[in-house]
Amino acid sequence: MRRLRLGMAQINTTVGDFKGNTEKILEAIAEGRSRGVDIITFPELAICGYPPEDLLFKPKFIDENLRSLDKVINGSSGITVVVGFVDAKGDIYNAAAVIHDGELVDVYHKIYLPNYGVFDENRYFQAGSECPVWVIAGVNVGINICEDIWYEAGPATVQAYAGAEVIVNISASPYHLGKRSFRERMLGARASDNVAIVAHNNLVGGQDELVFDGNSIVLNEKGELVARGKQFEEDLIVADLDVEAVFRTRLHDPRWRKRTLLFEEQRWQAPKVIVSEEPVGAQKPTLAPRHVEAKGMPGEIYDALALGTHDYIVKNGIKKVVIGLSGGIDSSIVAAIAVDALGAENVIGVSMPSRFSSPGSISDAELLTRNLGMRLLTIPIEKVFQAYLDVLKEPFKGVKPDVTEENIQARIRGNLLMALSNKFGWLVLTTGNKSEMATGYTTLYGDMAGGFAVIKDVPKTMVYQLAKYRNALGGREPIPSSVLEKPPSAELRPDQKDTDSLPPYDLLDPVLKAYVEEDKSVEQISAMGIPEEVIKKAARLVDSSEYKRRQAPPGVKITPRAFGRDRRLPITNHFKGY
Amino acid sequence: MRRLRLGMAQINTTVGDFKGNTEKILEAIAEGRSRGVDIITFPELAICGYPPEDLLFKPKFIDENLRSLDKVINGSSGITVVVGFVDAKGDIYNAAAVIHDGELVDVYHKIYLPNYGVFDENRYFQAGSECPVWVIAGVNVGINICEDIWYEAGPATVQAYAGAEVIVNISASPYHLGKRSFRERMLGARASDNVAIVAHNNLVGGQDELVFDGNSIVLNEKGELVARGKQFEEDLIVADLDVEAVFRTRLHDPRWRKRTLLFEEQRWQAPKVIVSEEPVGAQKPTLAPRHVEAKGMPGEIYDALALGTHDYIVKNGIKKVVIGLSGGIDSSIVAAIAVDALGAENVIGVSMPSRFSSPGSISDAELLTRNLGMRLLTIPIEKVFQAYLDVLKEPFKGVKPDVTEENIQARIRGNLLMALSNKFGWLVLTTGNKSEMATGYTTLYGDMAGGFAVIKDVPKTMVYQLAKYRNALGGREPIPSSVLEKPPSAELRPDQKDTDSLPPYDLLDPVLKAYVEEDKSVEQISAMGIPEEVIKKAARLVDSSEYKRRQAPPGVKITPRAFGRDRRLPITNHFKGY
Repeated sequence: MRRLRLGMAQINTTVGDFKGNTEKILEAIAEGRSRGVDIITFPELAICGYPPEDLLFKPKFIDENLRSLDKVINGSSGITVVVGFVDAKGDIYNAAAVIHDGELVDVYHKIYLPNYGVFDENRYFQAGSECPVWVIAGVNVGINICEDIWYEAGPATVQAYAGAEVIVNISASPYHLGKRSFRERMLGARASDNVAIVAHNNLVGGQDELVFDGNSIVLNEKGELVARGKQFEEDLIVADLDVEAVFRTRLHDPRWRKRTLLFEEQRWQAPKVIVSEEPVGAQKPTLAPRHVEAKGMPGEIYDALALGTHDYIVKNGIKKVVIGLSGGIDSSIVAAIAVDALGAENVIGVSMPSRFSSPGSISDAELLTRNLGMRLLTIPIEKVFQAYLDVLKEPFKGVKPDVTEENIQARIRGNLLMALSNKFGWLVLTTGNKSEMATGYTTLYGDMAGGFAVIKDVPKTMVYQLAKYRNALGGREPIPSSVLEKPPSAELRPDQKDTDSLPPYDLLDPVLKAYVEEDKSVEQISAMGIPEEVIKKAARLVDSSEYKRRQAPPGVKITPRAFGRDRRLPITNHFKGY
Repeated sequence: MRRLRLGMAQINTTVGDFKGNTEKILEAIAEGRSRGVDIITFPELAICGYPPEDLLFKPKFIDENLRSLDKVINGSSGITVVVGFVDAKGDIYNAAAVIHDGELVDVYHKIYLPNYGVFDENRYFQAGSECPVWVIAGVNVGINICEDIWYEAGPATVQAYAGAEVIVNISASPYHLGKRSFRERMLGARASDNVAIVAHNNLVGGQDELVFDGNSIVLNEKGELVARGKQFEEDLIVADLDVEAVFRTRLHDPRWRKRTLLFEEQRWQAPKVIVSEEPVGAQKPTLAPRHVEAKGMPGEIYDALALGTHDYIVKNGIKKVVIGLSGGIDSSIVAAIAVDALGAENVIGVSMPSRFSSPGSISDAELLTRNLGMRLLTIPIEKVFQAYLDVLKEPFKGVKPDVTEENIQARIRGNLLMALSNKFGWLVLTTGNKSEMATGYTTLYGDMAGGFAVIKDVPKTMVYQLAKYRNALGGREPIPSSVLEKPPSAELRPDQKDTDSLPPYDLLDPVLKAYVEEDKSVEQISAMGIPEEVIKKAARLVDSSEYKRRQAPPGVKITPRAFGRDRRLPITNHFKGY
C-alpha cells in the first residue's frame, strides 16, 4: 500500500520571536523524526509569527527570518519539512519552504493574499504565480498557504488536477464562533471535489486581538475526517495517509477525469518538482488515526478567551493581572477566565466601593474571590470622590449633577487600578462586554482603562452563558448565584439599572449583531420582529460611540466581526445608519 | 484658438454628509456655469466624502450616494460635470461620473487602488479596466482618479497616447510635509512626458487623522504651472486651457510620436466616448491665469494643524474645546492653533497647578491666555492628589514613591478636563507631541486623555519652530518668550527635566524620524553621526510604547508616516529593532 506518514506541528509561535519559534520548529522536527514521519509541516509564517504587520517593512526583520530559516534547513536531515517564512526576492512573499534532508529544495509563494476583515496582506506581499506539485517520498504533494485553499478552482484544484494526491495547506486561520465548522465544511468540499487528501495545518495561540484555534485536520479523498488536532493547544498530529485510495477513487470519479476542461483556462503554472522519489512509508506499521473532539459553544469561546488572555499577558512579559471587581457578572467572568488562564496566585481583585455600592455587590465580590482562591484588595473611593467634588464646586456652580459625577467615580476606579499597575507591574484587565462597547455604555479612562479587554467581543447575553458554563465545569461554583440573578447595574447613582439607558439585553444583542456584524438596515432588522425604536436607539448609540472604541484596549476577537481592525469606521461621519 | 474653459471645484466634503456635499457640488456647478466653464470637476468620492472606510459595506450608504448623484445629474444643464462617487455594478468601484447637460454619459472606474500607508482601497473596491478618452466641447479629455496618475505608463499615459489632450485627475491626496512639491514634480513629469495639459483637482479639509491640502493645479503640456488653487481652503479654480498648443508641441515631440511602441503592450482599453463635439470656448474672452503662492514650512504645517483641528471639531458637531495649560511649549502652541482655528471665545484653558508646579509655569499659562484673549480656569490638584495618596497608603505600604505618583497627578488633570468636557460639552484637546508619543513619555489616561491630539505627529523640535512662526505672524506675540526659553519639564516631581528621561530633542528627533518613519536600523542611524546608546535607548522606548499609542486619540498627520493607520505594528512583538 502506498502511503505517506505526515506530521503536522500545530505550534504556538510569537511574532518576532525568531529564537523561540525556531527552537519550537527544531524540537517538533526531532519529535517527528522519532515518530517516523516522512514530511513534517508547520503553520503559515511560523518562523516570524503571524501576523507580523508593519514589522515586514523592516529589512532587519526579513534578514533574521532568513537566518532562522537556515537553522531549520540545517536541522532537517533525513526528513522533509514544510515551513512558513517571508521570502525576499527583490520583493517580499508569504512563502512556504520545501526542505529535504538539509537542503532548501523549493519555495512556494502564496497566490491569494487576504485583504479583508482583519487581514491586510496586499499591504505587504507580492503574490505568487506558480503552484507546483512536489514529489515527496514518491507521493505527489500540492503545498499551498491558507487563503489559497479557500478558492474553488484555486491553487489546490490546479495542483490536484496536475496530479497532487495530497494537498498540504499551511495556515494561520483566526478563530471566531462558527469558523471551525465553516472551515471544515470548505476543506471537506475541497478534498472530495478534487479527490485528494487534504491536510490543514493551522496555527494555535493568541496574538493581540486574534486567537488561532488550532483544530488542524486531515481529510481523506472523500472529504471524511481522518484526524483532528487539539483545540486551543499545541499538538503534533501524526497520520498515515492512504495515498493508494486516492488513485483508486479518482478512476471512478467523472469530475476528476474531466479535469482537462479546467486546465485550458488555468492561470498558474504547475510544474513538477522532485523532492524525494523513494517511497518510505511501507516499512512502518500503520498508525491508528487520532481524533480530538472539538468543543462547541460556550466551552469553545471560554477556551478562546482564556488562551487569548494567557498569551497576551505572558508573551508581553507580564506575570500578574489586576481586575476591578464590582460584584457584577462581567468582572466575575473576567476574574474566572484570568484565574483559569494564569493561576489564582497571579490574579488580584480590587473592590472599590462607593456611596452607591449595594452591600450585595461588595459581598458578591468577596465571595467570588474566595471561590476562586484569589487575593482581594479593598479601596473605598469616597474620599477621593469627595475631593473631586470639592475642587469642581466652583467651576460647576449653578449646574446640576449628571453623568459627569458618574464618570468621575468610574475614572477614580480606573486611576486606582492604574496606580496598582504602575506600582507593582500588574496589567489591568478591563471588564466591558461587547454590548457595552457597542453602545458606549462605558466610561472612557474609567472602566475602559486597562491593558487588555478580555470580553470586549462577547455580547452580554453570551456573558451569562459563559458564567453558567464555568459554574457547571465541576468543583466549587466560582460565580455566586446572586451575581447571575440580579439585574445589571453600574451602581454610579442610586437605584441605577442598565435598562434605564439601554434596551433589555435579550432584545439589544440580536440588534447589535445585525447592525454591527452584518451591516443590516433598520428595515431589515425590524423584519426580525424587533420594535423599530429599539433598533434606532441601538444604532444611534453604536454610531455615536466610535470615538470611545478608538481608545479602547485590545481584546480577544470571538465573533465574525469584532471592533478594531475588523471594522474600520470613521469617527467623523454624518451618515446615519438608522 | 482651440481651448477649453475648466473649472476645478476644490471643496471640503464631509464623510457621509450626502446632503451637504451635494449642495456644495450644486452651488459650485452654478458658479462654474456663471463663469462660463465648459467642464467643472470635483474631488475623488466628492459625493460621499473621503475616505468612507467600512461605511462602504453598508448598502444604504451606497444607495444614498447614488441618489445624490442623480441630484447632481439633474443640476447639470448646459455644462459637463466630472464628479467622484461610488459606482455599484454588482460590485463597488471608486468612480468618476462624466455628466453632460442633464445626462450621465459615462462612468470611469479607478484602476490603481492604493493599499499602503493610510490607504486600504483593496479592502473595498473592484478595480477598473478601461480608460476612455472623452470628447468634451470638441477637446479630447482623459479622466482618471488619484492613484491612477502616479504610475508612469499608467492610465494617464494610455489616454494621452490615445489622443487625450487634457488629463483630468480627480483626487483625494492627503497632506504631509513635502507632499505638495513631490506631487507637483510628478504631475509636471506626467504632463511633459505625455505632452498633455494636466489638471489635478484635489480635495481640501480634515477627516479624522487626515488633512487634504487642496493645492489643486493645472500644468501645461511642457509641465509648467498654469494655475494653482488655495492651500487648506476651498477654491474654484477657473482656467482657460490652450489645447491648440498641445497638438503643436506633440508634432515636435519624438517621444509622443513614437507612442505606438507602448501601445502594443497596453493593458487597458481606451475607447473614445463622445460627450459634446462642438467647441464652445472660442466665444469667451480669455481669462488671465491665477496662481496662489504655496506656503512652505512651518506655515504650511501650522495651517494643516489648524484646518485639521477645525474640521474635526466642527464636523463632529462640537462648539468649544478645553485645554490643560501647563505653561509649557506644547500646550501653548495647541492653544494658539485652537484659537486661530475656532476663535478665542471657543477655547477654554485650565491651569491645574500642583505642589511641583513652578511659579513661572503658572504665570506663563496666565500670560498666554491673556495674549490669546481666551478664558482660563484654575483648579489646583493638591487636594485630590492627597486623597489618592491617603487611600493608597495601605496598599502601597513599604514601597517607595516612583513614577506611580507622577502618573496619578497627570491622571487627576485628565479626569478634571474630562469632567469639564462631560459637564459642558467641551472637547478636550491633548497636547502631546510626536517625540513624546514615540517614546511613551506621556501618561495613558493622563495627558493622553482627550478627543483630539493636535500635535501628536509634530516632533518637539518642530513645535519650537511652529511657536516662533506663530509669534512672528504680527500683532501681539501670543507665546511668552520664557515658554520658548525654559528647558522642557513635566513638573511631576521636584526639579524634573525631560532630559532626565530622554536624550536632548535635537538628537532624539532625527533618530525618531529615521527609526519610526524610515525603518532604518541602528547601524544606518549610527552612520548619521549619532551615538549608538542614544539610538538604542530611543528605539527601545518606541518599541515598548506601542500599547500606549494604541489607546491615543486621533490627531493630524503631517509627516510621511504618522502613528495610527499609517504605521501598523503589533503590540505583542519579540522583535527588537535595536
